[in-house]
Amino acid sequence: MATDIATKELHKPIDVAEYLFRRLHEVGVRSVHGVPGDYNLVALDYLPKCGLSWVGNCNELNAGYAADGYARINGISAMVTTFGVGELSALNAIAGSFSEFVPVVHIVGQPNTKSQKDGMLLHHTLGNGDFNVFARMSGGISCAMGRLNETHEVATQIDNAIRECWLRSRPVYISLPTDMVVKKIEGQRLETPLDLSLPPNDPEKEDYVVDVVLKYLHGAKNPVIVVDACAIRHRVLDEVHDLMEASGLPTFVAPMGKGAVNETHKNYGGVYAGTGSNPGVREQVESSDLILSIGAIKSDFNTTGFTYHIGQLNTIDFHSNYVRVRYSEYPDINMKGVLRKVIQKMGKINAQPVKPLSNALPDTEKGSSDQTITHAWLWPSVGQWLKENDIIITETGTANFGIWDTRFPKGATAISQVLWGSIGYSVGACQGAALAAKELGNRRTVLFVGDGSLQLTVQELSTMIRNKLNPIVFVICNDGYTIERFIHGWDAGYNDIQPWDVKSLPVVFGAKDQYKGYRVKTRDELTKLFADKEFNSVPYLQLVELHMPRDDAPSALKMTAESAAARNKKK
Amino acid sequence: MATDIATKELHKPIDVAEYLFRRLHEVGVRSVHGVPGDYNLVALDYLPKCGLSWVGNCNELNAGYAADGYARINGISAMVTTFGVGELSALNAIAGSFSEFVPVVHIVGQPNTKSQKDGMLLHHTLGNGDFNVFARMSGGISCAMGRLNETHEVATQIDNAIRECWLRSRPVYISLPTDMVVKKIEGQRLETPLDLSLPPNDPEKEDYVVDVVLKYLHGAKNPVIVVDACAIRHRVLDEVHDLMEASGLPTFVAPMGKGAVNETHKNYGGVYAGTGSNPGVREQVESSDLILSIGAIKSDFNTTGFTYHIGQLNTIDFHSNYVRVRYSEYPDINMKGVLRKVIQKMGKINAQPVKPLSNALPDTEKGSSDQTITHAWLWPSVGQWLKENDIIITETGTANFGIWDTRFPKGATAISQVLWGSIGYSVGACQGAALAAKELGNRRTVLFVGDGSLQLTVQELSTMIRNKLNPIVFVICNDGYTIERFIHGWDAGYNDIQPWDVKSLPVVFGAKDQYKGYRVKTRDELTKLFADKEFNSVPYLQLVELHMPRDDAPSALKMTAESAAARNKKK
Repeated sequence: MATDIATKELHKPIDVAEYLFRRLHEVGVRSVHGVPGDYNLVALDYLPKCGLSWVGNCNELNAGYAADGYARINGISAMVTTFGVGELSALNAIAGSFSEFVPVVHIVGQPNTKSQKDGMLLHHTLGNGDFNVFARMSGGISCAMGRLNETHEVATQIDNAIRECWLRSRPVYISLPTDMVVKKIEGQRLETPLDLSLPPNDPEKEDYVVDVVLKYLHGAKNPVIVVDACAIRHRVLDEVHDLMEASGLPTFVAPMGKGAVNETHKNYGGVYAGTGSNPGVREQVESSDLILSIGAIKSDFNTTGFTYHIGQLNTIDFHSNYVRVRYSEYPDINMKGVLRKVIQKMGKINAQPVKPLSNALPDTEKGSSDQTITHAWLWPSVGQWLKENDIIITETGTANFGIWDTRFPKGATAISQVLWGSIGYSVGACQGAALAAKELGNRRTVLFVGDGSLQLTVQELSTMIRNKLNPIVFVICNDGYTIERFIHGWDAGYNDIQPWDVKSLPVVFGAKDQYKGYRVKTRDELTKLFADKEFNSVPYLQLVELHMPRDDAPSALKMTAESAAARNKKK
Repeated sequence: MATDIATKELHKPIDVAEYLFRRLHEVGVRSVHGVPGDYNLVALDYLPKCGLSWVGNCNELNAGYAADGYARINGISAMVTTFGVGELSALNAIAGSFSEFVPVVHIVGQPNTKSQKDGMLLHHTLGNGDFNVFARMSGGISCAMGRLNETHEVATQIDNAIRECWLRSRPVYISLPTDMVVKKIEGQRLETPLDLSLPPNDPEKEDYVVDVVLKYLHGAKNPVIVVDACAIRHRVLDEVHDLMEASGLPTFVAPMGKGAVNETHKNYGGVYAGTGSNPGVREQVESSDLILSIGAIKSDFNTTGFTYHIGQLNTIDFHSNYVRVRYSEYPDINMKGVLRKVIQKMGKINAQPVKPLSNALPDTEKGSSDQTITHAWLWPSVGQWLKENDIIITETGTANFGIWDTRFPKGATAISQVLWGSIGYSVGACQGAALAAKELGNRRTVLFVGDGSLQLTVQELSTMIRNKLNPIVFVICNDGYTIERFIHGWDAGYNDIQPWDVKSLPVVFGAKDQYKGYRVKTRDELTKLFADKEFNSVPYLQLVELHMPRDDAPSALKMTAESAAARNKKK
């Protein structure tokens, strides 16, 4: 852009930081995660006047996880870190958001532009005068970069970054040098809201694809729908539900798609994940002559180690940027418009019934006098306990495999990091999700995390307390990294952990009377707790130690781990 | 290399992982830091047979900090993480080691080479088939990369990476795919130890530089020596001490050079840091007509905000890869050889006496009846208490500025991250340093960390307990991020923290009877503790809450913070 608005008269001058934060507020952000640092402090002063709260996480990785969790509930999130030290600590979390299509705006406070130009030997640098090295590192895990170095570009850069973040549902990186924070730019631009609408498909192309889809759909004898993560992340859940309703087709979810679909709907048939599927699901999906696969991410942990047996000849794949019918690819077309028209034009479809699902205990557990809390018993029992609109977060490990066996109530949202799989993620994500839930209304947030994973990010319990959040945190106490034991090193010392007094952690983190802890070792104890009225009213943070056998795991985890171990060795 | 040794007969076949770990043992590594993950588990099985212990940190960032601390005491260190999630979590720590010249070998367990070639959609990937994106991110903060993908290259890659790590005193990155772990390579090569010796300088060039140095040195009336970080990191402390001894010159250290010099030596004059220098030091250094500056890193926090007043016409800079005499640069020459010859050929030098230093309290504190523990009182008092060979770790904040006022006993080593300045670093570094100290013999490890910084990395207290380490951890309890308050936001909420019961942290982390905690609020209490025989015998981990006023800071911090705030605003 050749014009320099700094030299023109500004109609409604506004400081750069205020412009940025007002845009974030406009797209729905209400709390900003992060850690203060001297290159971002002045910017943080602008938050309150823009209607934004500061969370104040214990460290940047946890802040990044929390921003990811907040975005999954709220739609989008923002975090602020400081140059070098802060931003690098958050990279793993940002990479996770990139991998799993979660829109997070990462704002990095940078040294003064003059200091950068002069290549000064400042703290938080590599000592080599290179002020771009960290931004380059973020480049590979961001869908857009906004470098706020010149006043005449700032508004365009901010608007573009936030729009890309939303539309591509992935993290963006915005660098904000300390001197730019207070620079004046044109505020009139804020009177025009950001256009976050999806660019429409080419109508002729869209009609063509819809006709192809309908041709195969009408010709199919027993079609089914399988819904996966990108249906959630690219916001087609209304279309998915309308499709379920209009077609009457049996509908399944992949593990990463858990929570996408109303699991109390008569068409819902359970989790499809190859050999790890819910009982009966595999047979019905794999015998189908047409699978409408919506937003699939066919990763190892999402498919029980690549055990799908579905032919591409029987598949139509719907994605945010392409549709594939059998082997015919239709690039540059968004599934949203296609699905909408398919629903409109559908007519009569061959819809087979689906086997009803419930949270009944499996036969092996029914009437058992064993008081040991096993995975086979736990996850259906959790399903019986959950309430409408609960948010259920499961850590990578026994929990995010176990949850396949829980049938959700209506309105439930699941959060898990099946593809990226960074252990410790769920504790930070729980903080962010619980905060978003609090801001949006009255939803419960429930976390299941293992005692090993908890150790990576434990201090975010403190952030929950500080922000008066009230999730229920179940800590599966089973003596270490169980998922790893199933892959390799059953009795290896590296899979052990230091034993902690888990229930007392919130106490030392200063919870005072705004906390209650439980230690649960039997089925009866947990059943009683699930029935406890006060417990269910979630008055404040509650933590439940759930003591389970070291060697027990959900069967899907066992199968996936075997497959991972075999692949690791493969020559 | 065209030959493929896999096809030849191997004389002493050895598995790749064993070769790697035997080389690490050879260069002095005894414990390996890190976190297990499924792409590194099989490799970890090889540690015991190679004489290496596994530390098992709580998370990768902390492991990276610990590896940095271990290397600063032990000479070199190694850490193992897993692909994507693990390695990215460690990047901030690795960048700190790069910035501050600390040799850390970072080994990353990767997916099978076949899975990588096939671009499989595995967990811990971005889902885009790019298996190189994370290595590229590490490229900018590593001085060498060893990618162990082909058996015929493996030994060369390992040997080269470890040699570069040592010689350039910076991190290297080694990627180890799961299938490569067990591949056979030639073990005979291990019979030839790695050549870690510094390539000698060109003798003619070296003599030339030495003559120039001596010309100015002999012509100077009141020369002084200033020793900084790179003298430690590039291993010229023997030369520095011989130079002190042979020349009789007044010798000072920059803050990052703290601990480089025997501070009980008669020539030692204190910390030079521009306006933040110890009393009298600035005058003596800045009135000198020749400063022998050894291994300087003239960063903002190392110079009290660039307040050196030394002319380049009065300076000779000695570095690991160049020497500069006034404005004449001599590239590609190592200071070690030059210093050695300067010492040999020196003859008589004009050496002024140095004002004796002590740990006496400043006049303002002497005989004061005030029981408040202030920084002005604390740091000289710490100096009176420290013992020979203690390791003193100070966190970025009040502690690493306060330590400028502590005169060390003989053999003391200081650890601080003055340039990179990542808060939370010191807790991880303390774990690593304490472990190295335990392995090397009977040295005490003492940490000073603020209550704000502690929150970032607190779980490494658990790793200390798990590994039966016995540092003394002083936690300065002053209600938040004090260094930031002095820069910006004196009463801002973002500089506050959640109040913790700090003394009880090791208890919930399972310390049992191998721990003692103290809460100290007065000078008398601390004086008494410093005299306590059992406390000083460091039988196990001890943690001391040191309650200090929120608004107090060492004067050097106040000056540096003012300068940083001004630079942040500069137009």
